Amino acid sequence: MFDSFITRYWFSFEAKEIWSDIQTLQTWLDVEAALAEAQARLGVIPADVAPVIKEACRHERFDTERLSCEISHAQHPFVPVLRQLEEFTGEPAAGYIHWGATTQNIFDTTASLQMKATHALIDSSLVRIESALSKMATKHRDTLQAGRTHGQHALPMTFGFKVAGWLEEVRRDRQRLQDRLKSSFVASLGGAIGTFAAMGEKGPAVEAEMAAILDLEPAILPMRSSYDRVSDYVCALALFAGTAEKIAQDIVFMQRTEIGEIEEAFHMGKVGSSTMAQKRNPSTALMLISLCRMTSARLPLVVGSMVRMDEGDSSASNVSDVAIPEVGILGASIAATLDRLIDGLDVHVEAMSKNAGITNGLIVSEAAMMQLSDRIGRHHAHHLLYEAAQRSVMEGVAFTQAIAEHPRMAGHDMVTLNVSGYTGESGTLVDRLAGINEDL
Amino acid sequence: MFDSFITRYWFSFEAKEIWSDIQTLQTWLDVEAALAEAQARLGVIPADVAPVIKEACRHERFDTERLSCEISHAQHPFVPVLRQLEEFTGEPAAGYIHWGATTQNIFDTTASLQMKATHALIDSSLVRIESALSKMATKHRDTLQAGRTHGQHALPMTFGFKVAGWLEEVRRDRQRLQDRLKSSFVASLGGAIGTFAAMGEKGPAVEAEMAAILDLEPAILPMRSSYDRVSDYVCALALFAGTAEKIAQDIVFMQRTEIGEIEEAFHMGKVGSSTMAQKRNPSTALMLISLCRMTSARLPLVVGSMVRMDEGDSSASNVSDVAIPEVGILGASIAATLDRLIDGLDVHVEAMSKNAGITNGLIVSEAAMMQLSDRIGRHHAHHLLYEAAQRSVMEGVAFTQAIAEHPRMAGHDMVTLNVSGYTGESGTLVDRLAGINEDL
Amino acid sequence: MFDSFITRYWFSFEAKEIWSDIQTLQTWLDVEAALAEAQARLGVIPADVAPVIKEACRHERFDTERLSCEISHAQHPFVPVLRQLEEFTGEPAAGYIHWGATTQNIFDTTASLQMKATHALIDSSLVRIESALSKMATKHRDTLQAGRTHGQHALPMTFGFKVAGWLEEVRRDRQRLQDRLKSSFVASLGGAIGTFAAMGEKGPAVEAEMAAILDLEPAILPMRSSYDRVSDYVCALALFAGTAEKIAQDIVFMQRTEIGEIEEAFHMGKVGSSTMAQKRNPSTALMLISLCRMTSARLPLVVGSMVRMDEGDSSASNVSDVAIPEVGILGASIAATLDRLIDGLDVHVEAMSKNAGITNGLIVSEAAMMQLSDRIGRHHAHHLLYEAAQRSVMEGVAFTQAIAEHPRMAGHDMVTLNVSGYTGESGTLVDRLAGINEDL
Amino acid sequence: MFDSFITRYWFSFEAKEIWSDIQTLQTWLDVEAALAEAQARLGVIPADVAPVIKEACRHERFDTERLSCEISHAQHPFVPVLRQLEEFTGEPAAGYIHWGATTQNIFDTTASLQMKATHALIDSSLVRIESALSKMATKHRDTLQAGRTHGQHALPMTFGFKVAGWLEEVRRDRQRLQDRLKSSFVASLGGAIGTFAAMGEKGPAVEAEMAAILDLEPAILPMRSSYDRVSDYVCALALFAGTAEKIAQDIVFMQRTEIGEIEEAFHMGKVGSSTMAQKRNPSTALMLISLCRMTSARLPLVVGSMVRMDEGDSSASNVSDVAIPEVGILGASIAATLDRLIDGLDVHVEAMSKNAGITNGLIVSEAAMMQLSDRIGRHHAHHLLYEAAQRSVMEGVAFTQAIAEHPRMAGHDMVTLNVSGYTGESGTLVDRLAGINEDL
Repeated sequence: MFDSFITRYWFSFEAKEIWSDIQTLQTWLDVEAALAEAQARLGVIPADVAPVIKEACRHERFDTERLSCEISHAQHPFVPVLRQLEEFTGEPAAGYIHWGATTQNIFDTTASLQMKATHALIDSSLVRIESALSKMATKHRDTLQAGRTHGQHALPMTFGFKVAGWLEEVRRDRQRLQDRLKSSFVASLGGAIGTFAAMGEKGPAVEAEMAAILDLEPAILPMRSSYDRVSDYVCALALFAGTAEKIAQDIVFMQRTEIGEIEEAFHMGKVGSSTMAQKRNPSTALMLISLCRMTSARLPLVVGSMVRMDEGDSSASNVSDVAIPEVGILGASIAATLDRLIDGLDVHVEAMSKNAGITNGLIVSEAAMMQLSDRIGRHHAHHLLYEAAQRSVMEGVAFTQAIAEHPRMAGHDMVTLNVSGYTGESGTLVDRLAGINEDL
Repeated sequence: MFDSFITRYWFSFEAKEIWSDIQTLQTWLDVEAALAEAQARLGVIPADVAPVIKEACRHERFDTERLSCEISHAQHPFVPVLRQLEEFTGEPAAGYIHWGATTQNIFDTTASLQMKATHALIDSSLVRIESALSKMATKHRDTLQAGRTHGQHALPMTFGFKVAGWLEEVRRDRQRLQDRLKSSFVASLGGAIGTFAAMGEKGPAVEAEMAAILDLEPAILPMRSSYDRVSDYVCALALFAGTAEKIAQDIVFMQRTEIGEIEEAFHMGKVGSSTMAQKRNPSTALMLISLCRMTSARLPLVVGSMVRMDEGDSSASNVSDVAIPEVGILGASIAATLDRLIDGLDVHVEAMSKNAGITNGLIVSEAAMMQLSDRIGRHHAHHLLYEAAQRSVMEGVAFTQAIAEHPRMAGHDMVTLNVSGYTGESGTLVDRLAGINEDL
Repeated sequence: MFDSFITRYWFSFEAKEIWSDIQTLQTWLDVEAALAEAQARLGVIPADVAPVIKEACRHERFDTERLSCEISHAQHPFVPVLRQLEEFTGEPAAGYIHWGATTQNIFDTTASLQMKATHALIDSSLVRIESALSKMATKHRDTLQAGRTHGQHALPMTFGFKVAGWLEEVRRDRQRLQDRLKSSFVASLGGAIGTFAAMGEKGPAVEAEMAAILDLEPAILPMRSSYDRVSDYVCALALFAGTAEKIAQDIVFMQRTEIGEIEEAFHMGKVGSSTMAQKRNPSTALMLISLCRMTSARLPLVVGSMVRMDEGDSSASNVSDVAIPEVGILGASIAATLDRLIDGLDVHVEAMSKNAGITNGLIVSEAAMMQLSDRIGRHHAHHLLYEAAQRSVMEGVAFTQAIAEHPRMAGHDMVTLNVSGYTGESGTLVDRLAGINEDL
Repeated sequence: MFDSFITRYWFSFEAKEIWSDIQTLQTWLDVEAALAEAQARLGVIPADVAPVIKEACRHERFDTERLSCEISHAQHPFVPVLRQLEEFTGEPAAGYIHWGATTQNIFDTTASLQMKATHALIDSSLVRIESALSKMATKHRDTLQAGRTHGQHALPMTFGFKVAGWLEEVRRDRQRLQDRLKSSFVASLGGAIGTFAAMGEKGPAVEAEMAAILDLEPAILPMRSSYDRVSDYVCALALFAGTAEKIAQDIVFMQRTEIGEIEEAFHMGKVGSSTMAQKRNPSTALMLISLCRMTSARLPLVVGSMVRMDEGDSSASNVSDVAIPEVGILGASIAATLDRLIDGLDVHVEAMSKNAGITNGLIVSEAAMMQLSDRIGRHHAHHLLYEAAQRSVMEGVAFTQAIAEHPRMAGHDMVTLNVSGYTGESGTLVDRLAGINEDL
């Protein structure tokens, strides 16, 4: 789906570049070079072979078609790479490549580096999203909008308040991703089962040195069958996908023909339908929802791949080796798409105001209740207004009239139903939450 | 993952060909051509434009790079295809292309055709699998093996009996897939919302005619927001993935170093590890498990995409438009891999026999119980043998001795513990179930 | 959740009764009684013990608290039941109980019987739902409504047409459930691993006889580690949940405050909020969505439980032993809730009509396109209307005016934009599909 | 499943108590009492009504059967509770109950309190598990065991090393759960849509005060449609379930009849089978796997419930309201079961040693390779040993002989194959990781 001419534009090109075959190969080679350098520094391999290995570690020298054939024949994803690399270094360096390592060490460390680069993409989108949401919340601090629960008008609020809610959730997402990056994506080097057996006592030190070269933390206990760390970051990404899907759903609804409170970016040439010329679909928001669902669907795959036989299990690691690049690309694509979506939103303030008024005051029944509460108690007020509201709906009587005519209102002053005056702390919460971010 | 040089060999090349961009484009064009032909036959469009359209419907004429750019600009996956097609036909035929159709009609019908072709691949693998399993069951009709439940030896059986169980499940899978093919993959043509509004009264007849040309059934009520049909076939594929994963897990276990009852195909050059030269991993079985899990993970995506807003919803159909090709390729790859795995199995009859004997008779405690049941009742026999067996395990006393020395055995003849004689109906069930298939 | 005083009303009481502990116990006993009877008929156990066993197989005689303690101590769910049963029959019958069977045989056959009873509940709801939808479709054969795709007005249709789509999908669901019932829920009796070893050659005949007594099909190859059959029915239930969720989402949308095209049943005393007296939420539809999601979430659990080690694996069967009752209760609850929801729907014909008109003709741009197609070609018509429609939206010009003023319209007669006249085959499809069912 | 006499012992009784109907009701009441107290302190309601409300907030006074009926009638889960509470307080206090709150505020805050109590249970199990694993790792610091990857012997290690891996993962799980507790489970009070509209300007202060009384953090932006916080903790629980399932799978394998390296606790009276008296199943480990799978299956449900319409959506919150108690009980049950499982493990040191030796040295082919690497280069050594190992397996020649006879060995000293001497850093890693914990 990433490369298809039909759908390729859904996905972040930068993220696809990071996870491309060529970049993956190059990152494998970078890890091998770092390993050799670390081992040379610590005297595990001769000092003069490390530069030779590093020099050979350039993807341009590799024949990927031959690699693909050999991988298929060997049913092993990496030994053919080593074979070519040995050819490029020549003797004696060839004899010191991949010293004490196992394939999965290289793969896991590579994924760490790639995910770190992906995280930088995601984070830069998140910075932009936070900034845009802060501005939007502040701008619409007092823009009246109907608050809705269970699909029905509930109370009035401001659009800025809604946006502040999106903002806060995005902020937490960003914090979570940052917090987990280092501990989730470490450098691993323990050999076949994690005991460092092939490197004598220097194994842990080599791992630490290699990690330092690659600007990662060392795994310390580099067990290939322990996969909670990566899964933890993927969980945070899935939560971010949840946030993005919620926002996108809200936007799709607000753009509904009958609602018309918002519209995503449109340009001449954007087509909604091959048969209906008038269509202006929220296609970015809908596509974002799709990306989010594809991401969520991979969460059980990744978390499920934590269950690995003994000290290593390709039935599980095959799955994560495929799923992690997908999740990385999807995560970056969600962030980039959400950024673009938010950035292009056209807010229809009048429609929001108009919609907030369509219930003729039913939307502020709570305000009426609170006014009556001091006089007759909150519970009796709720009961009175329940009866008045239902009569209003069923008999088509105005809500004010139904209230006024209710028997229990006898002797009480009438309540006021002021929609725009009952937005509560909408504005002050916007000030408190969207203001923080202004130096971004 | 399908195209990566690292993993491409995991997947069926034939299936990838069916779902390639070029084939998808060609199949879209085939559907457009069939639509035009059907409409010409029924007098909906002029008779002479249909051949012109058909002639233009060749993928070689299209510029897919340009398509990709235009799709991205239009944010619409198909209108750019129509634009190029219009250029190729010229006037007046250009004015009759895609008459009364909507994009999703073309996409859904195309997916039907592609999945039908994929089904043929899957089915041919299943025929070979059934045949191989039948032969294997028959060959090992009487090969003694330990039956195991909950990871512990339970009762003896034969390996043929185990294989007959695999065979029966595969047979049911094949039947399910066949049964659902026609009803799951239909030809749809109802326009934007399924009302055939753009074709006057002839819409349903055009759909039927187009379906006949494409050798599909017509949808009749071609609602884009109704997606149970396709989901039904995908469920059957997920069940087949469940079967394949179960078989593969059994094989991985039987190939365990300590068990050694089976080995998957090995050839010189197949490599198990970049560091451990001795490794002969069940890598095909493990990879098969991975494919099965990737397939299962898409089941909630597809079934979830049934929930579509109103008369059409790209947030859901985007997901299935991507997931169906993946599921198709995965399904065919599972079938092909299972075929190859079964075909290359090396059965170690002696190891099976040896393993069946390692409990010194505990494995036939049920046989002893049934012998005693006639004398002291089944329940008392169970109790007696429970005590004897636990004493055997905990004190290291031979099971026969522990039985003989049990107080309740006083006055009773000793039971016999004949492992190879207690395989029950293993053989006759093999005859009954694996024989049926012999004409394949 | 089934028994909580907060949520118990969400769930079918009849289904909960079927799967209650007491009914489960009784059904276990029924299976044991049927087993004894079958074995007595075939001479496997003495003829006179079967009636004694049957007589003892009454749940009232059991002490379930004691059972619970003993199950916990034995860490076995069934042996304590057998112990009590032995006490009730006394000797010698006690010695012939559970002859040749294993626990999972009893559990699987019991689940078959319970699911069959649950299916009857589901089916009776489905009959009512089909009937109600048929009537509703027919009644609203010509009720104008906006057809919507991607959250935007697409084309006009009739509400009856939408309902016909729901009906067709429900019909397919019902057919699928019926088709799979017999093959999914069979009687199993093969002993510990399915070889019938404890019953000599008569095992398969006993299974067939027992199945006949219980009105089920025999498993023939009763392998506990083969679980595709049950999973197949659960897939069909999950598809039905998908259908129900789609319908419920449509209803929630149509009841939106701004849409108001439909309202689910309301009665005085139904409360929408503890603080907002006016709230009339679509709470039944929303709760139905929740039930559907809970059901879908169990699909991977059940399908995943197909992957069972060797000849039996409680890590998987524990999961299905718990999930099947839940899925059964959920399925029946979805059916009952959907029935109630459909039955109580209040359709607001005027709101549908009003909403269909709010775009001032944009909704029938396709109709305009088809009128122009004969004159200038479909593709040019699409282009012209695209420009006119976007101008209409962006400049606030009436759509008819924007069309009339478009340069390419020069020399052409104006098109007509008749919303109610462009519902296509809505009505005839209702006749064709909803009429079929009238004898229900 | 929690209450069934068949399965109730699988689940933590303490956790079930926390989430029982009665405790849920009481916690609702505690939250209402805290709300009243906070409001009295801040002058929102009269000071003298708070003690009256608090006094009435005792679950013993409530008629839960009546509640259940009223909830069903009102289709609202909480208004009937308020009605009874109003009866108990009498006027005027009744008029000040639930002031400015909405039902979901009470429910969410209650779930926070219950989950906090559940976390304490989980944490105390985790402390015990860490301690037990530390001791076990230390005790078996030097216990030789075969390390296995992909189901095949890989390299030798020590059992202590394996346990250190489990320990590290459990430690990270515990840390994650602790880190997220406070931010995941907050006190919410914002009224219907989170604007605090019914409390004037004092709303945020009341929330903070109520939170302080309940020893929780305030939500600050208490939007009911923002559900990432709770989901975050549930992700951590799902990761812990992944850890537990991995450990349990390892144990099930090590207890395999042919492996016999470990046995879970057994006591006379524990029954493995109704028909096979000898069975000693790893039933606790298998049941633990089942619990873990049930937990993982709820992860998509919870994360999926983040996608909520607008300002509140019971179709999503119904799901989490049911799933959170289930996940809480499951999490505590997993922790308690893992604690019990680890605590009762019987380690068979001799079997581990014996199994490590069964490949006659193939398991240390890497050791041989490293010895040869200095002489002929690592790559040539791998090639030589690959050929020798395959010859050994296929021709039945001893591995040492196959190495010695390999042409490339000519002129080189023979390598030594010392299984117990090639466990690498197993021991020092145990010292480093399991020692840390010794003060627990």
